[in-house]
Amino acid sequence: MSLSSVKGSSKCTGGVDTDLGNKCSKIAFGWAQKTFCNRKGRTGLPVISGGGSFCNIMSFGALRIGMTSDGIGTKVELAERTGNYSSLGFDLVAMVADDLAANGVEPVNLSNILDVDFLDSEIVDELMKGLCEAAEFSGMAVTGGEIAELGKRIDGYGKRMHFNWCATALGILPEDREPITGNEVVAGDSVIALKSRGFRSNGFSAIRNIMREKFGDDWHNRIFKDKRSWGEVLQTPALIYSPLIMEIIRAGIPVHGIAHITGGGIPDNLGRILKVNKLGADLENIFSPLDFMLEIQSLGGVEEIAAYKMWNMGNGMLVIVPSEKVEQTLDIIAKTDYLAQKAGKIIDRPEILINSKGASPRLLSYEKTGK
Amino acid sequence: MSLSSVKGSSKCTGGVDTDLGNKCSKIAFGWAQKTFCNRKGRTGLPVISGGGSFCNIMSFGALRIGMTSDGIGTKVELAERTGNYSSLGFDLVAMVADDLAANGVEPVNLSNILDVDFLDSEIVDELMKGLCEAAEFSGMAVTGGEIAELGKRIDGYGKRMHFNWCATALGILPEDREPITGNEVVAGDSVIALKSRGFRSNGFSAIRNIMREKFGDDWHNRIFKDKRSWGEVLQTPALIYSPLIMEIIRAGIPVHGIAHITGGGIPDNLGRILKVNKLGADLENIFSPLDFMLEIQSLGGVEEIAAYKMWNMGNGMLVIVPSEKVEQTLDIIAKTDYLAQKAGKIIDRPEILINSKGASPRLLSYEKTGK
Repeated sequence: MSLSSVKGSSKCTGGVDTDLGNKCSKIAFGWAQKTFCNRKGRTGLPVISGGGSFCNIMSFGALRIGMTSDGIGTKVELAERTGNYSSLGFDLVAMVADDLAANGVEPVNLSNILDVDFLDSEIVDELMKGLCEAAEFSGMAVTGGEIAELGKRIDGYGKRMHFNWCATALGILPEDREPITGNEVVAGDSVIALKSRGFRSNGFSAIRNIMREKFGDDWHNRIFKDKRSWGEVLQTPALIYSPLIMEIIRAGIPVHGIAHITGGGIPDNLGRILKVNKLGADLENIFSPLDFMLEIQSLGGVEEIAAYKMWNMGNGMLVIVPSEKVEQTLDIIAKTDYLAQKAGKIIDRPEILINSKGASPRLLSYEKTGK
Repeated sequence: MSLSSVKGSSKCTGGVDTDLGNKCSKIAFGWAQKTFCNRKGRTGLPVISGGGSFCNIMSFGALRIGMTSDGIGTKVELAERTGNYSSLGFDLVAMVADDLAANGVEPVNLSNILDVDFLDSEIVDELMKGLCEAAEFSGMAVTGGEIAELGKRIDGYGKRMHFNWCATALGILPEDREPITGNEVVAGDSVIALKSRGFRSNGFSAIRNIMREKFGDDWHNRIFKDKRSWGEVLQTPALIYSPLIMEIIRAGIPVHGIAHITGGGIPDNLGRILKVNKLGADLENIFSPLDFMLEIQSLGGVEEIAAYKMWNMGNGMLVIVPSEKVEQTLDIIAKTDYLAQKAGKIIDRPEILINSKGASPRLLSYEKTGK
């Protein structure tokens, strides 16, 4: 996320003090902005930050380097419940690599910080193995790491090592390209949706509340209809889109905007891009939510409009391209394992319309774009 | 810290399972190394990491960029106890900026991640104001930030917002310089000590144990002899040395090695540099510990040899220069607010001798250099 986002439990419960989160983000960004002048005329001066950006980009002479930090929040609890730690690395890399890619920045390096209560070398090994696999998938080198033992400052589920895990990623903007910020988006552009395979690292506090309410404390062991446990289903690792995005860019597609759908869902994350030019979108053909997403929405009685503000609902990334480039872009994607479809178009008013496909399908309207 | 260090409570208590910490570091570094090839022939390939390094340096074409991550561990509890949050930013910047500077890398950008249980905008404001001031002191721009609300996964002292705070810093290696790793150190070189003004962000678990044992749970309110509370005294923010180090380098001093004295004290951190060439050091004239450090050592009955392995004992950084450059270096430092003195010399055997100045002064010998 760019400077400075707030994510976590209160936002994910769909309204509890989102205002306070936004206030704290603004405070942090306000102070950070005052430091930009410290690099005036030198390397590391911010080129873009805030606004339509998912990461921050600094100039280092001719090079432009992107930087972003994020964590996997309370998705960690799933691993503590299932005892499977191997896939969290994909969730962590997805959060930061895809925030870079959303601005057209190629993810390059990653440093991670693991805060633990006490050490369990077996769990550390599983986490780092997963991180290594995810780094390979995204073409990044893990070039930094810190493990901090913080004792009682860290808590979690069960008796084994508890932890919180975050990362900062660096990337490089291709030499001949400007950052993708949304300022090239025009009415009539097309929106391509990339299918997700599960929840990313947001919205889990609401998910846990729903599951606990319905199935009790031991909810993760309950069996979902496909015979897997709910714990396993919900832990489905995030798909990392950055390799695909870089392939599309390298193929010369003039991508106008990319929204990485994390906390705040399509309305907030697409809105952040669209507000740059005060535009909107009509999404008549997005992907349907995964079956377990639908089930959770139903179990919790979550309103359609709230569900799309909280979860990705099956659409992990939205890519905006000129309408005449849609087929070429879809052809590129068709040669990969990613699933994509034309989802809608950019419209000339600040409104996001979603032909929803959740538990109670209807036409949703989010009237103001952006946060 | 470089890839991948473990810091925290167990190490700081002087022996409780340091082995497990080292094991986990090795596991993490082992997996990270496997990812280096992901950047072969491309930007972001690691140039130095591990060994005598405090950060990791990657090549970006002609540019070499340093990256390091660290946190301020349980020093946070001091702020929770005193209600003063304004100086923690200096502690955070010191940990990462000085790890970059220790390899001759100029700190440039910083991204921070604040994990909280719940948000308190007043505390966030104080923290970020302090970070802004520390960034200005070190000449860095804060170009990334994330605040994560993690509910019960975060705990601490008292009733207000609890948090853990970490950062990743980027820096740039001056164009005409190689990284300072210790491989230029030779026997006969001189060691210059830079005076510290208090504890850095390590060794606090041991400090808290000692204080609680002596003064009970409310120890931070007890008055130290200079009329300040123990909480205030122990919270003395870390001095950031990177601006001085960059000034020394810019003046053309051929610095051979720099040790940033954090967890593990002089033996581990100087040892890390010296082991590159299997050398040692005879430190006959280091700075004395601050009076409150001496008092804590006495209160806890901490053995001299253990105290120097745990705390900086008044010496925040050690700079190794050719002996004929000592006076010129000290002259440069004399024009600043930093305090320095010639502390000793490099010797031709892998042993660190310290003419100690703690509660029970004597000649200490640490026979193996490096971790």
